[in-house]
Amino acid sequence: MSTSPDHATAVDPALADRLPALREQYAALQARGLSLDLTRGKPSAEQLDLSEPMLSLPGEGNHTSASGTDVRNYGGLAGLPELREIFAELLGVPTDQLLAQDNASLRLMYDCVVQAMLFGAPGGDGPWSASDGPITFICPVPGYDRHFAICEELGIRMVTVPMTPDGPDAEAVAALVAEDPSVKGMWAVPTYANPDGSVVSEAVARRLVSMPTAAPDFRIFWDNAYAVHHLTEHETKTANAIELAAEAGHPDRVLMFASTSKVAFAGAGVSFLASSPANIAWFSQHLSFRSIGPDKVNQLRHALFFGDAAGVRAHMAKHREILAPKFEAVTSILTERLADTGVATWTDPDGGYFVSVDVVPGTASRVVELAGEAGIKLTPAGATFPYGDDPQNRNIRLAPSMPPLDEVRVAMDGVATCILLAAAEAVTS
Amino acid sequence: MSTSPDHATAVDPALADRLPALREQYAALQARGLSLDLTRGKPSAEQLDLSEPMLSLPGEGNHTSASGTDVRNYGGLAGLPELREIFAELLGVPTDQLLAQDNASLRLMYDCVVQAMLFGAPGGDGPWSASDGPITFICPVPGYDRHFAICEELGIRMVTVPMTPDGPDAEAVAALVAEDPSVKGMWAVPTYANPDGSVVSEAVARRLVSMPTAAPDFRIFWDNAYAVHHLTEHETKTANAIELAAEAGHPDRVLMFASTSKVAFAGAGVSFLASSPANIAWFSQHLSFRSIGPDKVNQLRHALFFGDAAGVRAHMAKHREILAPKFEAVTSILTERLADTGVATWTDPDGGYFVSVDVVPGTASRVVELAGEAGIKLTPAGATFPYGDDPQNRNIRLAPSMPPLDEVRVAMDGVATCILLAAAEAVTS
Repeated sequence: MSTSPDHATAVDPALADRLPALREQYAALQARGLSLDLTRGKPSAEQLDLSEPMLSLPGEGNHTSASGTDVRNYGGLAGLPELREIFAELLGVPTDQLLAQDNASLRLMYDCVVQAMLFGAPGGDGPWSASDGPITFICPVPGYDRHFAICEELGIRMVTVPMTPDGPDAEAVAALVAEDPSVKGMWAVPTYANPDGSVVSEAVARRLVSMPTAAPDFRIFWDNAYAVHHLTEHETKTANAIELAAEAGHPDRVLMFASTSKVAFAGAGVSFLASSPANIAWFSQHLSFRSIGPDKVNQLRHALFFGDAAGVRAHMAKHREILAPKFEAVTSILTERLADTGVATWTDPDGGYFVSVDVVPGTASRVVELAGEAGIKLTPAGATFPYGDDPQNRNIRLAPSMPPLDEVRVAMDGVATCILLAAAEAVTS
Repeated sequence: MSTSPDHATAVDPALADRLPALREQYAALQARGLSLDLTRGKPSAEQLDLSEPMLSLPGEGNHTSASGTDVRNYGGLAGLPELREIFAELLGVPTDQLLAQDNASLRLMYDCVVQAMLFGAPGGDGPWSASDGPITFICPVPGYDRHFAICEELGIRMVTVPMTPDGPDAEAVAALVAEDPSVKGMWAVPTYANPDGSVVSEAVARRLVSMPTAAPDFRIFWDNAYAVHHLTEHETKTANAIELAAEAGHPDRVLMFASTSKVAFAGAGVSFLASSPANIAWFSQHLSFRSIGPDKVNQLRHALFFGDAAGVRAHMAKHREILAPKFEAVTSILTERLADTGVATWTDPDGGYFVSVDVVPGTASRVVELAGEAGIKLTPAGATFPYGDDPQNRNIRLAPSMPPLDEVRVAMDGVATCILLAAAEAVTS
């Protein structure tokens, strides 16, 4: 679990005395001429190798689905039933409420927002783009930059709520949606959130799907990107938001997204949309104007490779063996170098792809700058907030999946130096 | 080439005398209990078998592009350079003006229209959706139903112009675009048009890219779906509209679309967008909000399978060997059964996927009904016109690619009977 991102520790004023030593340390770091990258949640080559047999699948002569469809030809808008069954089980939804589409879930999210903008959504009173003034999305922060970018691209106003160890601050969300009908949506990464690793608790999920909303067509974009991406043997199950929403009398509130991008090949995956029957019908009906059907050959490839839900789980355990030591390196080096200095708090996630670090307020951009000048690329400060604007300039997202373990160690030691130096500069100035 | 679709032959009044015999013939047809389908331009299993080795490609251990990129991972928004090079040569465009994206070109067309609706297009003065009143697209008829459906879905008004043997009636188009700034786009299938098989001549292409338009951001959606889909050894080259548009001082006028859907696997292809540098930058910039990159594994699979442009041409020659006898069967049976009766004219295309038949005005829907009741499914009458409304109720699109050759023969003989019977009914009533 994570340390609280709101935990503000007093910076040790004695840090100022360490400034000359930290400057020397940093100069030595720079002298190493590193070229390391912790910017994005990309799987490593070692992880991609786990799925290498897929490159020869489905194999010559193997082009027929379980139901007898020739997967090479047109059609089958909802996706291949056998693959949908596997992921329906993993995501806890009925197969007929799950669509399997092409690379990638980002596209499905974008399409859902655009569809609602152009045509409206079930239960609403017209296209979102026809509203008086801009519509609004709630963005829990820190969050995923590509979610915020979709809103910015489409002229959607963003308001923030804080993340808690149990997911988005549900009371803050409930207050925002209660009175303002312009609030049409919110983002959530329910399992091992990007970047803070938190998991939405059942209580928070219940509150989010039950709360009264001024907009009749309010939607939660439930981006379950890390549903099966565990870093420990304890395989967290997030609250089943689609089921809870139906129970709460708001069956259409939740649109769940997932994909195999971080399961098989990041650039060649299958994406999934799960929701109520009405939302699935709504999405499919508009989809039929832009698609004759998804890439069923790729879907058969995935179904053959995994076999069943247990096959996916076993495959993810192999990812865990590669990833867990990297995350362990991040947190142990941060602990070793920064514990008791008061210059940072950080998460210790049980899954997902990120570690979220809160440094001394006002210094996040300086840390990223220092690291960059020492050859360690970090995600730009502010990236985890709408418009790239972290009002406290303190959050940094670390992505340790891509580099080999020894590089993660070197990079993190360098990052710790940069965090300390930036803090020392701050208390000195 | 095609017989003129405007050629109106007088129906032989003696046909009325044949009504009883035709009714008997039709009853015999019904008694056969056929179940045949000429509705859609789907490749046959035999054609799909030509690409069967792709099902084992790229093969284990083969995941690196020519430039050293790991195709399994994220990124590379423009698509794999080696595949873009192959299709740039085939389509006659510079590689850096060609994007390779996922399945399928229908999606690219939809996305281009939606982007222009939401954000505007280069050279324009704002989002198309912000215009006063609906915008207008010019639809050459007969045409492709999915083009018209995109317009209908997005609330775009459609006006028609007739097709000629040299492509859309360019003078009619020029007259429509000259004064009305609401006319923002037109559809065109330049090579072996759907459904009439015509090829845009250089003169027509020059006129379309040179004509003054009231809208500064008028776009031609140049759906080059059948660019390499020849039915004869003469491989028609359509006029290079992108080059001609640049020469005419309207470099951004043409958006060209193509795909491998009818080259390799119909459901698992790669799509292409070619245009001016400004349009490619415009598309790519907005694309970056909805995609991290296309399926590069599938693109490498295609590049390895084809090797080069000559490989694509050689592959298409194998398609031709399968398709040409089916088209020959269609036209020879129509000739044998209907020549000199005056009940129909039809095209005899040099490529593409369709034969367009004009029957006695007022009888197309009756022909489709009769055929359906005899177990021969045809595309609904009117499908080749916006809103499904063929004002003369005379055009029928035949798609002979999917059924085996002997079924095409049986189906076409049945269709001829239905055309004759509907005509006889019409002259009798």
